[in-house]
This record gives sequence, structure tokens and C-alpha cells, in this order.
Amino acid sequence: MEKRHILIGILAVLVANTLYAQQKTFNPEDYATYKTSRADGRYASSRAIGNQLMKAAEPMLQFRPEMAREEFATWKSHVKQAMTLLMKHPIVKGQPAPKRVHVTQREGYRVEKWEVYPFEKAVVSFLMLVPDNASGKKPLPAIFCTPGWGQTKEGLAGEPSLNKPGEEYNPQSMGMARQYVREGYITVVVDNPGSGECCDTEWAAGLGSYDFATFGRAMLELNWSYLGYSSYVSKLILDWVKRLPEVRRDRIIFSGFSFGTEPLMAIGVMDDEIYAFVYNDYLCRTRERILTMTKPQADGHRSYPNDIAHLIPGFLMYFDFPDLVAALAPRPVICPEGGMDRDFRLVRKAFEVSGNPDGFLPIHYKMYQDASTRQVDLEHQPEGIDVETHFRLANVDPPHHGFKAEYVLPWVKELLKE
Amino acid sequence: MEKRHILIGILAVLVANTLYAQQKTFNPEDYATYKTSRADGRYASSRAIGNQLMKAAEPMLQFRPEMAREEFATWKSHVKQAMTLLMKHPIVKGQPAPKRVHVTQREGYRVEKWEVYPFEKAVVSFLMLVPDNASGKKPLPAIFCTPGWGQTKEGLAGEPSLNKPGEEYNPQSMGMARQYVREGYITVVVDNPGSGECCDTEWAAGLGSYDFATFGRAMLELNWSYLGYSSYVSKLILDWVKRLPEVRRDRIIFSGFSFGTEPLMAIGVMDDEIYAFVYNDYLCRTRERILTMTKPQADGHRSYPNDIAHLIPGFLMYFDFPDLVAALAPRPVICPEGGMDRDFRLVRKAFEVSGNPDGFLPIHYKMYQDASTRQVDLEHQPEGIDVETHFRLANVDPPHHGFKAEYVLPWVKELLKE
Repeated sequence: MEKRHILIGILAVLVANTLYAQQKTFNPEDYATYKTSRADGRYASSRAIGNQLMKAAEPMLQFRPEMAREEFATWKSHVKQAMTLLMKHPIVKGQPAPKRVHVTQREGYRVEKWEVYPFEKAVVSFLMLVPDNASGKKPLPAIFCTPGWGQTKEGLAGEPSLNKPGEEYNPQSMGMARQYVREGYITVVVDNPGSGECCDTEWAAGLGSYDFATFGRAMLELNWSYLGYSSYVSKLILDWVKRLPEVRRDRIIFSGFSFGTEPLMAIGVMDDEIYAFVYNDYLCRTRERILTMTKPQADGHRSYPNDIAHLIPGFLMYFDFPDLVAALAPRPVICPEGGMDRDFRLVRKAFEVSGNPDGFLPIHYKMYQDASTRQVDLEHQPEGIDVETHFRLANVDPPHHGFKAEYVLPWVKELLKE
Repeated sequence: MEKRHILIGILAVLVANTLYAQQKTFNPEDYATYKTSRADGRYASSRAIGNQLMKAAEPMLQFRPEMAREEFATWKSHVKQAMTLLMKHPIVKGQPAPKRVHVTQREGYRVEKWEVYPFEKAVVSFLMLVPDNASGKKPLPAIFCTPGWGQTKEGLAGEPSLNKPGEEYNPQSMGMARQYVREGYITVVVDNPGSGECCDTEWAAGLGSYDFATFGRAMLELNWSYLGYSSYVSKLILDWVKRLPEVRRDRIIFSGFSFGTEPLMAIGVMDDEIYAFVYNDYLCRTRERILTMTKPQADGHRSYPNDIAHLIPGFLMYFDFPDLVAALAPRPVICPEGGMDRDFRLVRKAFEVSGNPDGFLPIHYKMYQDASTRQVDLEHQPEGIDVETHFRLANVDPPHHGFKAEYVLPWVKELLKE
């Protein structure tokens, strides 16, 4: 009886909302960009003012294609310095070395579960997939993998889910780590903070998604950030991997999927030892997204393009993502999920000036591989767009977002052949 | 026909969700605090680790009741310095002086609408309520008012709403500014950024609430904050008010309602010229709220106690709100909406050491005025509570949150009598 009343109540609210909405004549198109009707061109909306302030704050350390070789080297050192300041990795002493807690034999490799201790009260688990032929005698290349939003290390390793029994691995990332280990490389895979075994109440409560934003908020209160924490933990593990006798320290590749490309960029520009990078997402300009994706939703909300797990205060005043990929040059980078040709031209310039013109391999999504399907010469995304338009202009095919083994594996094998 | 289908669809989803929820056995009580079953006491949950890190980061500039008078003065200068660094007010040159754009005569006073120009592309409106007897010959005291969450300057001034015709003023703040001007004081009132005339699409789309968080996010990306921006704009106006010939510069009171107590504290500790403060909210410890309000909601979400319009990265590593009220001593402060006796004892100590023991007037909500209704000796709120328990232990009576004219007006009149 009670439940029926609740449902009737909900229905009544829905109907009332529908009627109310019909009275309104709000048209998102009219508000797609920030406008002012004042003769002096000033804005009253705080949001519009914020937009103006961000426009005025052109990133200080943008890659400029006219840089000469020495200038490029100096610029790279500045990018590294800025990133180090932004990531704020603490120096934590007195913690035990990583411990191996479990081993499972699979066909051709074993899955080792390890723990690392980033702080006094903290433990973080990670998986290391080791080919059967690994030994200290002939060290192997290693690949460090970071998952996408909502994915787990088990998903990337092709291991059974710890949360949803029966689910073997996330189809989107296609067992990225398992595919690498099967090629004969030692492969390490971590969880993103707040997800997988690092989650909070999500598994216990059967929630459908991880709450990244609240953990991000906790970090921001501490004058840190989600990426600062996440890159600190990954860097601890990576530095430990480098010292393993089975690992060829000069042949470590960082392979980030989707959300996992953020730690790739942060650690990549800070750590000169990494050999190459698999940037498995479209090459995005986050700052441009913020400045152009200003079209409100149908209900009038003009929300932010992403949540605060992506927020590093001040980050976008230094650089945007293509600048960071440029700063990885001359070390090889594959971008197997496209982006704007503008950004590919820019990054290519960096590889040219660094002396490795063929080090950068961008590949568009299949539906955009024919140049006539893309706006090859587009230099700026227009203001006032929504996310669908953004993806179209950035040559992104969202339903086909996934690990691009068909491009990545041959590229990796070619790089790592002896 | 289509609409009926949508409603049936929504109903089906609701029923399915209800059935799904009944299968779960999640009990928020079991997760009220962060727990670990590990023998080494380490936490796997990133959220739990974040909680541990915040616990370890005791605020650097807490007021210590054992401070001697000189030490107190040094500490106050450090609080001022830290707040100045946190608020990051820019120096913007070449902008025009504020302009008066409109005047409305009311009984006994006039309402002047002014504009200030905080940035090249920005305009912010504010109201100045001027008693009929004001003149440059005998300057009057002035009161600077900041509204609560979702309120407008018109609401505080008792002026007709610019958005909802017919709504004269917000009943909760009870026309705070109008009550002051009727007592014969020049009264200035601003909108909070992102609300009132500073809002974005909210009025046009008929949204029921203001989106403070998205503007806050925009500021955070710029390495600034909502409060940094808001206190910058208010300080510009306040500094202009100080120079008006009609205003008695040494008798300016800052009166913040609810959310508006945040700019009060920020500007209060930075600007020694303000004469006294009306802190019209309960005296809260935000850091303690974060560390103790850890009980998940029924659905399992363990969300943050407030949104990012309240976030100033690193702020809580310096001080919490009672420390800031302590740093206002010896200048008079009234707290007419209670709080914990612990915090009142602390602030009282600051007023004693500053040489003005009676300068601080805390008054509990009516339902908590009898000491037997409060836990007078409570030194810490326990971990694992929800917001209702927090309010109860902080002696807050939420339905009666509002401008406490009955306490504030006599206190102000006594202070400002000649």
C-alpha cells in the first residue's frame, strides 16, 4: 500500500514537472555562448567572467612549433619542473618494501599480486604479469598499464573480477595487460585511486559507479589533487619495477587507457627513463573543451565538461594535453584513437625538432581515417558547442573507444625487437 | 501517446530499482567510520587514506588558548598573512570607479543601485541603502552585508525580487539590510558570485537553485577559489565604501548571513579597519565536519559535507572557522546562532588575551539556551555521524536558521551609540 502511494507521488511530481517545463521557453541555443547586451561589453554573470579570465590566462608553457632544438630542450625542462611542482609528490620514508601476497599460474605467464605502502596507514595492491621465460639472466621489457574510468586492474589483466563474479574482464579495455604479457613482456597494472580494490563503499553497497569526485575533493582540501595522488602511487610502483632484475630498465613502456592517459602524461614528463608511451585515448585539449563546450543542457544547466577528479588547480595555466605529449619527444608515442589534425601537426613538429620525426604515430578512428571525413584544417573548435559536436570535431567515435591492439601491439613489438 | 510511454518507462525503471535495492543488504551503520580488517592497520580504500592524511594534517595556525598577549599578536599577523596568500586577490588597474545607476526612494531611506568593475570584462552590481539624514557633514556608521546560499541582495534589502516578481524578500534573512538602514546606518549589500544578478542561465531557465559549484570549479582551474573571488569583489566595494564622505570609516560593521559568513572571516582577518562583526550562522568547524560526518547515505554513497564553492585548497591545513573568529579579537563579534560551547570557550579565551573579554557575544538557538539541553562539555564530535547528528551536537536548530534581529540589532545599537 505504502509503496503504491510513493509511486503515485512520484508520478504526480513527474507530471507537474512536465507541465512546468512546458511553460518555460528556455532555448539552450540562445545561451550557447556567453553573451552580454551591455554597450561596454562587460559581463554580469560570474560564470561568463570566469570564462573571460580563463581565456585571458593563455598557458605559460605551450609548445611553440617555431622552437629551435636548444630552446625545445629548455622548454622541456620547464615543463618537467612545472609538472613536478603541480604533482607535489611527497617523500615518505620508513615504509616497508612492496610485498608479494599471491601468485596464480596462467597459460604462459603468472599473475603476481603485490602490495605497496605509499603512506603509514595505506596499502595499494597491484598486479604484475610475468611471462614464464622471465629471469634475472635476460631481463625483459616491461609495460606499465593504467586503466580507464571505472575499470580495474583485474579487468586489464583479464583476471576474474573481485566484485562481480563471472565478469572476466572489461570489454572496452580488452585485457590490455594480458595482451602485453602474452607477447612476452612483464606487465604491471594498477587500480585508479577510488576504484577497484581502492574503492570505498561502492562494492559493499552494489553501486553502479565509483565516486571519484569525493576522493578528488579530499585531495584538493589537502592542497593536493587526484592526479597528484594517483601519479605518486604509480611512480612508487614504477620506480620499484625499474630495480627488478627481471626487468630491462631501459625498455619500460607506459600504456595508459582513457582516464589512465593522465598519469601517463604527468609521470611521462617527470621521468626521463620511460622508453615509450601508448596514449590510448583521443588527444584532447581540455582547456579548449572548457572554453567551447558552453552550451547549456535542455533544462538550463551549464555544467562543467568533467568532474573534479580531473582538476589540478592551475594546471591549465601551464599547458594542455598536446603540449605534454609534445614534451615526451623524442621518446616514441602512439596515439591510436585520433584527435584533431591540428594537434597531430603540433606534436609532429616537436618530434621533428627533437630529432625523431617518425617517433610519433597518430592513428584516427576507422570512421575518420579517410581525410575527407575530417575537417583536417580546423584550427579552433567553435564556442557554444555540446559534447556530441566536440567529439565530432575532434574525430572521436565514442562507441568504439577501446584498447586498439591492432595498432598498438605491432608498434610495441617493432619498438622492443632486439 | 509518446508521453504516456515515457511515463510507463520511468515507472518500470523505478520498480526495477526498488526490487534491486531490496536484494542488497547494505547497512550504512556498518560503514559509518572507516574500518580496516588488516592486522597492520593499513587502509585499502583511497577515501579512508585521504581521511587519514587529513587527520594527520593538524592546522598549522590553530588558536591555542595558552597564548600570551604578544604571542597572540604574532599569531594574528600569521593568520592575516596566510589568509592573504590563500585569497590571492589580484591587483587590477585601470578600471573605472563605481557608478550609481539607479535610485529608489523608500520611507526614511533611499536604495541606490551601484556598479563596480572588478575586471576589464566584468561588472558587479550592489545596493547601498542610505538613510534620509545621511550627509557628508556628520558621517554615519556603515554595515556591509553578505547574503546566504541562494539569497540575493534584493532579498536582504527588502526590495522586490528581480527574478520572481511578487516575492519581496527572503523570509529567512528577514531583510537584514533593510532592518539596519531603518536603524539609521548606511547599509551595503552584495550578491554572492553566481547568484542573483551574477547568475548565469538560472533565471532564464527558471531553475530552482543556483549552480555555485560550476563557478567554483572555474575559479579552481585558475588556481583561485569561489571565496577568493567573492572576497576580492566584496573587498573592492568595502574599500570604496570606506572613502565615502557620508561614511564613518572607523565604524564599519561586517554582517554575514550563513554562507555570507565565509567572506566575513576572510576579509575580517585581512582588513584591520572593520569595527565589528555579525556572524549570523552557527560557529562551525568545517574540518571536524569532514572528519566525522563519514556515515554513508542509505544507498551507500559517502558524499562530502559541502560542495566545491566552499573549497579553498589548503585552507583547512592552516585554520578552521573558530580560529578565524578568535583572530578577529579584540574587535566585537556576535554569534547569534550558537555552536558548540567548546568553540565559544576557545574564542572567549582569545578575547580575554586580546584585552576585550566581553567583546564576544555567543547566543544559542532558543531550543538550546537551557544548558541542560546541550552537551556543554563535549570536546569532540564523534566519527561516523550524519548531518542530523552533527547539527544536534553543534546545537543547531535548522528550521530556525535566520537573521536574529532580536539579538543583533540591540547589540549593534549599543556598539554604535555615541
